[in-house]
Amino acid sequence: MNICTYSYEEYLQLVKSFHGNLAPGLIIGGFIVDLAMKHLPEGEFFDAVCETPVCLPDAVQILTPCTIGNGWLSIVNFGRFAVTLYEKYTGKGVRVFLDTEKLNNWPEVRDWYLKKKKKNEQDKDLLMAQIKEAGHGLLSVQHVQVEPEKVRRKKMGNVGVCASCGEAYPLKDGESCMGCQGDSPYSDITAVNISSK
Amino acid sequence: MNICTYSYEEYLQLVKSFHGNLAPGLIIGGFIVDLAMKHLPEGEFFDAVCETPVCLPDAVQILTPCTIGNGWLSIVNFGRFAVTLYEKYTGKGVRVFLDTEKLNNWPEVRDWYLKKKKKNEQDKDLLMAQIKEAGHGLLSVQHVQVEPEKVRRKKMGNVGVCASCGEAYPLKDGESCMGCQGDSPYSDITAVNISSK
Repeated sequence: MNICTYSYEEYLQLVKSFHGNLAPGLIIGGFIVDLAMKHLPEGEFFDAVCETPVCLPDAVQILTPCTIGNGWLSIVNFGRFAVTLYEKYTGKGVRVFLDTEKLNNWPEVRDWYLKKKKKNEQDKDLLMAQIKEAGHGLLSVQHVQVEPEKVRRKKMGNVGVCASCGEAYPLKDGESCMGCQGDSPYSDITAVNISSK
Repeated sequence: MNICTYSYEEYLQLVKSFHGNLAPGLIIGGFIVDLAMKHLPEGEFFDAVCETPVCLPDAVQILTPCTIGNGWLSIVNFGRFAVTLYEKYTGKGVRVFLDTEKLNNWPEVRDWYLKKKKKNEQDKDLLMAQIKEAGHGLLSVQHVQVEPEKVRRKKMGNVGVCASCGEAYPLKDGESCMGCQGDSPYSDITAVNISSK
C-alpha cells in the first residue's frame, strides 16, 4: 500500500517531520490526496482546494507541489474533510471526501471523526489500525467543475508605503495598511536595536 | 552565512523542493525567520503569525515546526512582509519585517519589492545577489505582545452530518454546512464510482 510515491511508512515519517505528530486526520488525508491523484482529469497543471484548515492542508503540501505560500493550495473553511485537485485553466477537477456513509465499517474512526468519544476514551492504536486498514475505503470521489476565481488568491496589485507604520502594503487596502486600520493582533510593539546582537 | 540550521545553499534546495521555484520573497523570508529565531523571547513553545499569504508562509513551514495544518502558523492578510514568533502561553513575541527604510541600499530589491519595475525589466541575477548580500540588512526587529485569540484557529466544536450533502461539518455553522449554504466554489458535482478503477 503506497501513498502517492511513498510507502505507508515513509509517509508517516514525512508527516512526523513536517506536521510534528501522527495526526489521524493527516493519515486519512494522505489517502485522500493519493486517491485524488489517481483520478486526475487530463491536464498539465493542477491547483488544490482544501475544505478545512485542520490537518488536511499538510497532506496536500507534503504530497503535491501545491503550498499555501506558492498559492496553488487554497483553503476554504467549510469544515469538511475534502480535497479537490483541479486543472488550473479549465477548472475541471476531482474531489475526494471522507464519506460518512462508509464510517460504520470502521467504528473507532467514526467515533473519533464524529466526536462521539472524548479523547481519553479513544483507543489510538485501534484508530490508527482502522485508518490504515480502511485506506481508500473511507472515501468517495466526485468530478467537479471549479470556479477558480472563487478560491484563488487575489493579486496584490500596486504597492505603497503605509503612512502610519512605514511598511509596504497593497494600496487597494486603503489609505493605510490593514494592520494600522485596527486589525492588528499586537497590543504592544517596541523596536529592537538589532545591531547590538 | 546560515539560515537557521541550514547553509544558504541547503535552504535554496529546500525552497525549490517545497515551494517549486526560487521566489525572491522566500529567500528574504528565510532571513526573516532566521533573525526571528535569534531573538526569541524565553519560552518553550512558539506559534507563528505571517502577515501575508504570499511566499512567506512557506519560509515558516520549511524552517519551523509551525504549519498551516497543525495550526501553529496563522496568516493575517495585511500584505506586509513580516513574521512574528510568539510564546504560545504568554503571547510575548518577536516580529521581523522588511524595513522599507533599508531598501535604498539595495536598489534592485527595492524596485522589485515596491513593484517599480515590470517583471521583464528586472535583473533576476542581480536581485538574487543583492538579497543574499543584504541578508539581515533589509530587516528590522520589534518586540510585540500578541493577543493569541485574535490569530489562532477557532476550535471546530461539535460535529453533525449536513442534511444537504451528507458530509460531516461543524454544527456552529448552522443547519447545513457552509458549502451547502451557497459558498461553494463548485458549479457542477458528479459522483464517481471508484470501484471501477
